[in-house]
Amino acid sequence: MKLYWHGLQDGLERLRANTIFESFVIGVIIASALLIGAKTYEEASRFDQWLVWMDTAVTLFFLFEILVRMAAEKRFLNFFRNGWNIFDFIIVVASLVPINDSEMVLVARLLRVFRVLRLVSMIPELRILLAALVKSIPRMGYVALLMFIIFYIYAAIGSFMFNGIDPVLWGNISISMLTLFRVATFEDWTDVMYDTMEVYPYSWVFYLTFIFLTAFVFLNMMIGIVLDVMQKESAAEQLESGQGEAAEVHWMRERMALMSEQLERIERHLEQDKRQQ
Amino acid sequence: MKLYWHGLQDGLERLRANTIFESFVIGVIIASALLIGAKTYEEASRFDQWLVWMDTAVTLFFLFEILVRMAAEKRFLNFFRNGWNIFDFIIVVASLVPINDSEMVLVARLLRVFRVLRLVSMIPELRILLAALVKSIPRMGYVALLMFIIFYIYAAIGSFMFNGIDPVLWGNISISMLTLFRVATFEDWTDVMYDTMEVYPYSWVFYLTFIFLTAFVFLNMMIGIVLDVMQKESAAEQLESGQGEAAEVHWMRERMALMSEQLERIERHLEQDKRQQ
Amino acid sequence: MKLYWHGLQDGLERLRANTIFESFVIGVIIASALLIGAKTYEEASRFDQWLVWMDTAVTLFFLFEILVRMAAEKRFLNFFRNGWNIFDFIIVVASLVPINDSEMVLVARLLRVFRVLRLVSMIPELRILLAALVKSIPRMGYVALLMFIIFYIYAAIGSFMFNGIDPVLWGNISISMLTLFRVATFEDWTDVMYDTMEVYPYSWVFYLTFIFLTAFVFLNMMIGIVLDVMQKESAAEQLESGQGEAAEVHWMRERMALMSEQLERIERHLEQDKRQQ
Amino acid sequence: MKLYWHGLQDGLERLRANTIFESFVIGVIIASALLIGAKTYEEASRFDQWLVWMDTAVTLFFLFEILVRMAAEKRFLNFFRNGWNIFDFIIVVASLVPINDSEMVLVARLLRVFRVLRLVSMIPELRILLAALVKSIPRMGYVALLMFIIFYIYAAIGSFMFNGIDPVLWGNISISMLTLFRVATFEDWTDVMYDTMEVYPYSWVFYLTFIFLTAFVFLNMMIGIVLDVMQKESAAEQLESGQGEAAEVHWMRERMALMSEQLERIERHLEQDKRQQ
Repeated sequence: MKLYWHGLQDGLERLRANTIFESFVIGVIIASALLIGAKTYEEASRFDQWLVWMDTAVTLFFLFEILVRMAAEKRFLNFFRNGWNIFDFIIVVASLVPINDSEMVLVARLLRVFRVLRLVSMIPELRILLAALVKSIPRMGYVALLMFIIFYIYAAIGSFMFNGIDPVLWGNISISMLTLFRVATFEDWTDVMYDTMEVYPYSWVFYLTFIFLTAFVFLNMMIGIVLDVMQKESAAEQLESGQGEAAEVHWMRERMALMSEQLERIERHLEQDKRQQ
Repeated sequence: MKLYWHGLQDGLERLRANTIFESFVIGVIIASALLIGAKTYEEASRFDQWLVWMDTAVTLFFLFEILVRMAAEKRFLNFFRNGWNIFDFIIVVASLVPINDSEMVLVARLLRVFRVLRLVSMIPELRILLAALVKSIPRMGYVALLMFIIFYIYAAIGSFMFNGIDPVLWGNISISMLTLFRVATFEDWTDVMYDTMEVYPYSWVFYLTFIFLTAFVFLNMMIGIVLDVMQKESAAEQLESGQGEAAEVHWMRERMALMSEQLERIERHLEQDKRQQ
Repeated sequence: MKLYWHGLQDGLERLRANTIFESFVIGVIIASALLIGAKTYEEASRFDQWLVWMDTAVTLFFLFEILVRMAAEKRFLNFFRNGWNIFDFIIVVASLVPINDSEMVLVARLLRVFRVLRLVSMIPELRILLAALVKSIPRMGYVALLMFIIFYIYAAIGSFMFNGIDPVLWGNISISMLTLFRVATFEDWTDVMYDTMEVYPYSWVFYLTFIFLTAFVFLNMMIGIVLDVMQKESAAEQLESGQGEAAEVHWMRERMALMSEQLERIERHLEQDKRQQ
Repeated sequence: MKLYWHGLQDGLERLRANTIFESFVIGVIIASALLIGAKTYEEASRFDQWLVWMDTAVTLFFLFEILVRMAAEKRFLNFFRNGWNIFDFIIVVASLVPINDSEMVLVARLLRVFRVLRLVSMIPELRILLAALVKSIPRMGYVALLMFIIFYIYAAIGSFMFNGIDPVLWGNISISMLTLFRVATFEDWTDVMYDTMEVYPYSWVFYLTFIFLTAFVFLNMMIGIVLDVMQKESAAEQLESGQGEAAEVHWMRERMALMSEQLERIERHLEQDKRQQ
């Protein structure tokens, strides 16, 4: 019995690693994405029944696929060690829950939308890309905090000063922060400014200092971080591939240590010669 | 007969490589571009007949020039090995097709517009520039795919949620993607947001996360790729010219290998000395 | 008496350096920030009395905290050597001044807003970030001056030429500079241009040259400065950590000097050998 | 007589190089800039006579200053070897021409505006900055040409296709290019697009490909060029100062050549030893 199971597991593992099977899974994910897109067209209502069937087929295939991947794992819990597996599992299980309530239909639809993200978990290149992006997030933490402090201070000042002028834009601190984000994206920011300049003619100082501060902090930091991450990655890549300047420098460093030892040995030789003479 | 042909071919090859002839071709291309521009002015209708004559002259000259370049080729098929030649050939041949149908007039006009692109095929510096641009496209493929997935997911959510609010902006998934592109360029994006915030007060979360995600992915990736390509090119250029840091490091690496061998020879010498003593 | 004071001072110093105390101070700052935010909501008027009490509590705690930090200093004047301490001192002392005048209430409120900045003075990472930003300001001084000259010249031309067309936008040189800043942020700049093009059809030259000049100077300089600062910092960091290309090159340089001396010693040895033979 | 002249010339040269005199000239330039700015204010009309006197004083001082600089030159023609001197000369001489015609008043005013540019010619740091900017222009020539070709082709297509929809935006090829520049700055570009999409529903392809092309070419090239220039300058600076990675690599390269020669000498020594034994 156990032997039979092991044989089956090996088969499943081969199936999981099969590129045709992988391509088919990617195909089904793309089909499910197109299905979601198709539903947003009004004309799709005629094919409603057909779309429901397709949707059920996709759901069942995803269930089958995740069961294959789970069964192929030598130790069952290893499956949940991988963040992407957990993500896939939640997406698949959640879409199995039967929905009757009309309010929940929207939730179910949104859940189906996230199936498109399974593309990222299936294509290794996208996974690497995302990992690189995620890696650069913590470094931005403190910059984001600094930005938030700038926004908070300006929003507090803005809602104290301009609340009476236009409560829709400066009603409270959270609305003010949204307005300031709008100013930071240069979206009709002069309309906001001209309004407050009628009451406080010098309020352009508020907007200009804000724009300079955020643009300055943003530029300075983002470019800096991106550069930094990229330089390190490019150097690491060069070291791995053994080509490029960083790799050559690394090779030279190691070779130089050897040469240095060699020179020492030569010097010792010569000194021994001398003593022997 | 064959000898006569070879003599003619040599002459054509010389003509093709002649800088005066090349400059003249470039001049004709610019003239044809100005002709296209002139036709867009209303006042040009008075010179209509004259413009048609000019156009015919340009078409005939292009035909003559491409025949020269084809005949100058030692082996005829080599001509079509070069992508730019194929491009030139299509442009020239397509403009020879006689047009009567009024619908086709527009197509013919557009085809004449693409003649301007022949400037790129004629000026080597532009060809190099374009080659560098084309070279950086494949690396952007996966970033573009990631971007598309983000747009697709947000567009799906957007058309599920906001379809009832403004079908002109969120009617179906392709319209939603266009609207999201508008938001990504910060083009009156607050108008779009304020509309949906009247129904869903928390829909600013949708827009802000979208803006942060796209801006973050875009910045991170584009700058990264550009930097990467540029660093490699600059290093390659330094190696070629034999100047700059990368070239010095490369020189040192090679020289160090020689020195290392030399040291080994010296050490062997000394050891032989010892044994002989 | 003096001994007792020293014991107390040691205790205060320990308290000041205590991470729990530091976290508590940060917590109070965040609470005070939330308090400021809460006041901007209309619904907050019901809790008005409660907010005043909270505010007094925060003010007293800040007074207590700054006294602790002052007393913990071995030499009292050292406290004022640190710019951040002076900043904290001003914020705390200024909020102790009793306010009756209604005009001053706004000033008092604004002062409380700046308490949020104390977060920057308390979190070391933010202090480092800000120091890096401040360090890059002087280098931008001359670029800012050049930018100002460009703005000034265009504003002067603009208000001479377009004053009659729209005095709201081009009334005098300072209004013109604000309008040009708007053009530089691409904020409805075509509206400004189309207005003046009705009178001066060639005024697009004014706007396009201005946009190209500012964008060109801005891009060229900002990116250049940021790159420069970042490269230096990244190299300095590599040298410190002893890893990366810059560190390896540095190590090689030092090792090479040693090897060079060694080679000289070997050569001298051999020459002595020769003379002795 | 000649001796007297030489003595005077030495005195003028000392005056020209005097930092107090230089600061005074800069002060007068700033004063003249403020004068120009002051004239744009309506309230300035009360001080009209006073402003005219000030203007005459500035003009005379500039005349005096340029005469001093010319006389201080050992060989008179050397003065015109320097581009900035020619610029100063034109500005000063042109403002000496008496103006009666009312049309010319505007020209005279504009000429006075350019006096502000004399700040750049007086402050060395600004001159260096400008020289760096000018140095990066030729490299952008071909990118600008490529951009122009893209704009020209799209403008031709645009005015062929959309002329009937909105002649104000697409009337002829130059108006179309202005409209496309507007689209490239994202300035109300969706208004332009929605208009044409009513007639040609697929015209979004036109705008999106245009935006992608220009943004892509612009980003790719500008950043690339800036990076390239900056890297070279930073490396050159490191070599000059003798610090930093590039300098260390350069030092190592030279030292390595010496060591290599040394090793060869040692090897020859040993080989001679062998033959002698």
